[in-house]
Amino acid sequence: MPLDLVSGSVALTQQLCDMESVSGDEAAIADAIVEALAGLPHLEVIRNGDAVVARTSLGREKRVVIAGHIDTVPINNNLPTRLEDGVLWGRGTVDMKAGVAVQLVLAAELDEPDVDLTWIWYDNEEVDSARNGLGRLARESPELLLGDFAILGEPTSAAIEGGCNGTARIEVRTHGIRAHSARAWVGHNAIHDLAPVLAILADYTPQDIEVDGLVYKEGLNAVAISGGVAGNVIPDAASVVINFRFAPSRSGAEAIAHLEQVFAGFEVAVTDLAEGARPGLDAALAKGFVAAVGGEAKPKYGWTDVARFSALGIPAVNYGPGDPIRAHADDERVDVAEIEACERGLRAWLGSGSI
Amino acid sequence: MPLDLVSGSVALTQQLCDMESVSGDEAAIADAIVEALAGLPHLEVIRNGDAVVARTSLGREKRVVIAGHIDTVPINNNLPTRLEDGVLWGRGTVDMKAGVAVQLVLAAELDEPDVDLTWIWYDNEEVDSARNGLGRLARESPELLLGDFAILGEPTSAAIEGGCNGTARIEVRTHGIRAHSARAWVGHNAIHDLAPVLAILADYTPQDIEVDGLVYKEGLNAVAISGGVAGNVIPDAASVVINFRFAPSRSGAEAIAHLEQVFAGFEVAVTDLAEGARPGLDAALAKGFVAAVGGEAKPKYGWTDVARFSALGIPAVNYGPGDPIRAHADDERVDVAEIEACERGLRAWLGSGSI
Repeated sequence: MPLDLVSGSVALTQQLCDMESVSGDEAAIADAIVEALAGLPHLEVIRNGDAVVARTSLGREKRVVIAGHIDTVPINNNLPTRLEDGVLWGRGTVDMKAGVAVQLVLAAELDEPDVDLTWIWYDNEEVDSARNGLGRLARESPELLLGDFAILGEPTSAAIEGGCNGTARIEVRTHGIRAHSARAWVGHNAIHDLAPVLAILADYTPQDIEVDGLVYKEGLNAVAISGGVAGNVIPDAASVVINFRFAPSRSGAEAIAHLEQVFAGFEVAVTDLAEGARPGLDAALAKGFVAAVGGEAKPKYGWTDVARFSALGIPAVNYGPGDPIRAHADDERVDVAEIEACERGLRAWLGSGSI
Repeated sequence: MPLDLVSGSVALTQQLCDMESVSGDEAAIADAIVEALAGLPHLEVIRNGDAVVARTSLGREKRVVIAGHIDTVPINNNLPTRLEDGVLWGRGTVDMKAGVAVQLVLAAELDEPDVDLTWIWYDNEEVDSARNGLGRLARESPELLLGDFAILGEPTSAAIEGGCNGTARIEVRTHGIRAHSARAWVGHNAIHDLAPVLAILADYTPQDIEVDGLVYKEGLNAVAISGGVAGNVIPDAASVVINFRFAPSRSGAEAIAHLEQVFAGFEVAVTDLAEGARPGLDAALAKGFVAAVGGEAKPKYGWTDVARFSALGIPAVNYGPGDPIRAHADDERVDVAEIEACERGLRAWLGSGSI
C-alpha cells in the first residue's frame, strides 16, 4: 500500500511503524518513500543504498537539511501499533518514525518553502557506526549533505536540543607480576595499581561548559573494570574502561589530550572517539527556528548524528516528537500531541515567509 | 605388579608415579598399598574409601602421625617418568609420590620405631576441599588421626616447614544507580565507590608475625575485580575479591574480624575461610625431629593439610622431597638427592633411640 502523505503525520506515523524496517531491512520502506515522492515536481529524489534524499532547487539564498533514520531496533511483540487516548504505541513510534512522518508530510506539502530544503531519510542508524547510512552519504556524496543549517528529527519531546556532547572511551591498564597469593611479596598486584586511577575518577569534578549559549554537562566515568587470574594468584593485569562525555567546544583531540593529562603516568589506550557538535544556535537561521517553534533550546547530552553535520561545518540541532527515555523500550509510545506540535513547528518556520 | 618396598624410595617413587592416580581415580594405588603392607605383622592396616591407614601398636609413650596424599593433578604428557642425571621427571614426582614412597619404605622397614607410628595415605587432596580424604577421615574416624605430633610429606625441598598460614576470601561489594553515561548525574557509579577499597589495599602493610619461633608473613591482596554493564551505562554494581593470608596465631574468626575492621563501612561477604596451623616446634618431639633432620625449620606460607591436624590440637609440620614451585608444572621433577635425604632424615629420627 502506497504511503499516504495527505492524511497527516499521525496516521503516517502509524503506517510507517506497521511497515517493519529493523536495521538492515529498510529496502521496502525506502522503496515506498521513493514511490511516494517521485511524482512531486518540486523535489529531486536520489537513492543511495536504502537512503533517500529529496531536495528542492528553488534558488533560495539558504538551504536547510532535515534528516531522520528509517530503521528501528528489533520488534519485540510491540507491533502493530495501536492508538489509545491520544497515545500511539509501538516499535518506532518514538525512535523515530513519528519524526520521519512529520518530515515526509512537509516534504510533499511545502513546494514553495522559504529556504531550499534537503530531506534525508537514511538506514542503519541503530547499529554499528560503520554501517550508518548518513555516514555513508557523507563519505560517498558529501555534497548532498551541504546546507546552512541542519535539523535531525531524533526524539526530543518536541523541544530543540542543540548540538551534542562528544564521547571518548579509553582503557587505563596496569601491569604487575603474577605470584601465588601465599607469597604475594614475590609478585606485584596490578589491581592495587588501579587505586589511584579510581581515586582520580572519584575525585574528578566534571565541568559545565557553555557553548553558543547552551550549557553542556560533561561526565567522566568508569564503565567497566576487570582483573584477576584465580583466587590464589596475585593478578598481573587489570584495566578500567572510562567513558568521557565532553562538551562540543573540545575537539576530539583536545578531549584525548585532557584525558592523557588527567591520567598522566598511566598506560592509556583510546578505544573509541566521536566528536561532539556545536549547537550553532547563534546563527541567524537557528534563531529564527527557535523563535518559530517557541520554547527554549536545550543542550543535547547524548551523541547523535548531528555530529556528522557538525563535522561538515553545518550547525545542527535535534528536534522531534517522542520522549527519548521511551526509545528502544518495549513499551515505546509517543504522545500524538508531540507529533502534531513538531509538524506545526516545522511548517510555521519553513513556510512563514520570515526566514 | 606389586609395590616394591625394598629397592629404595627412588625406585618406588618411579613405580608409584607410573601408576596414574589422578584425583578420583586412586582405587588401584590404594589397593596396591594395602596389598604391600597387609602381610607385615607390625602394622594394622585400615581402609577408608581410597585412604589407607597403617599403624603400630607397640605401647610407646608417644605417637607420631605421618601422612601424604596419593592423588595427583591431571597428567599432561609427563608420564611415564624418566630418570636422568639424578633427576626424576614426571607427574607426581614432586606432589607428592616421592614423599609417599619414602613413607611406604619406612612403614615397612621400621618394625621397632621409637614411637608408635600412624601412617596415612589419602585421596583427593588436589580437588575441592569437601572431597579431601584426610578431611573425610577426620570427620568419620578422628581417632585414627590422633597423635602427639604430625608430619605431612608435602614438598618442602627436604626442609622442615612448620604449620601454615590461614587463608580467607572476602568480597567487598558496592552498589550504585544505573544511568546512561551521557547523563551520569542521574546515576551513581559503583566502580568509583571501589576507590577507597583499592586505596586501603594499596596502603595496607602486611604484618610479619612470630608464632612458636617462626615468622609468618601475612598478605592482603585483591585477586579479582569486576564491574560494568555496557560502554554507555553508569554501572550499578562492582566488587573486589580479596584474599587474606593470615598467621596461625589468628583464629579464622579473628582474621575475619580484622578484615571487617579494615573494610569498616563497606559491604563485606566472606566466601572462603580456612584456619592456619601453629608449627608447634616448641614441643619436645618437634625439637628432636628438627635436630635429627638438621637444618633450620622455616614457616610454611601456603595452606596445607597440616591445618587439619592443628584443628585436632596436634602440632604438625611439612617435610618432603621436591621443590614446591615444580608442583603441578608440566616439567614436574624432583632431585633424587632430596628423596634420599628425606628417607635418611625420617629414618634417623624414628629409629634413633633418642626420641
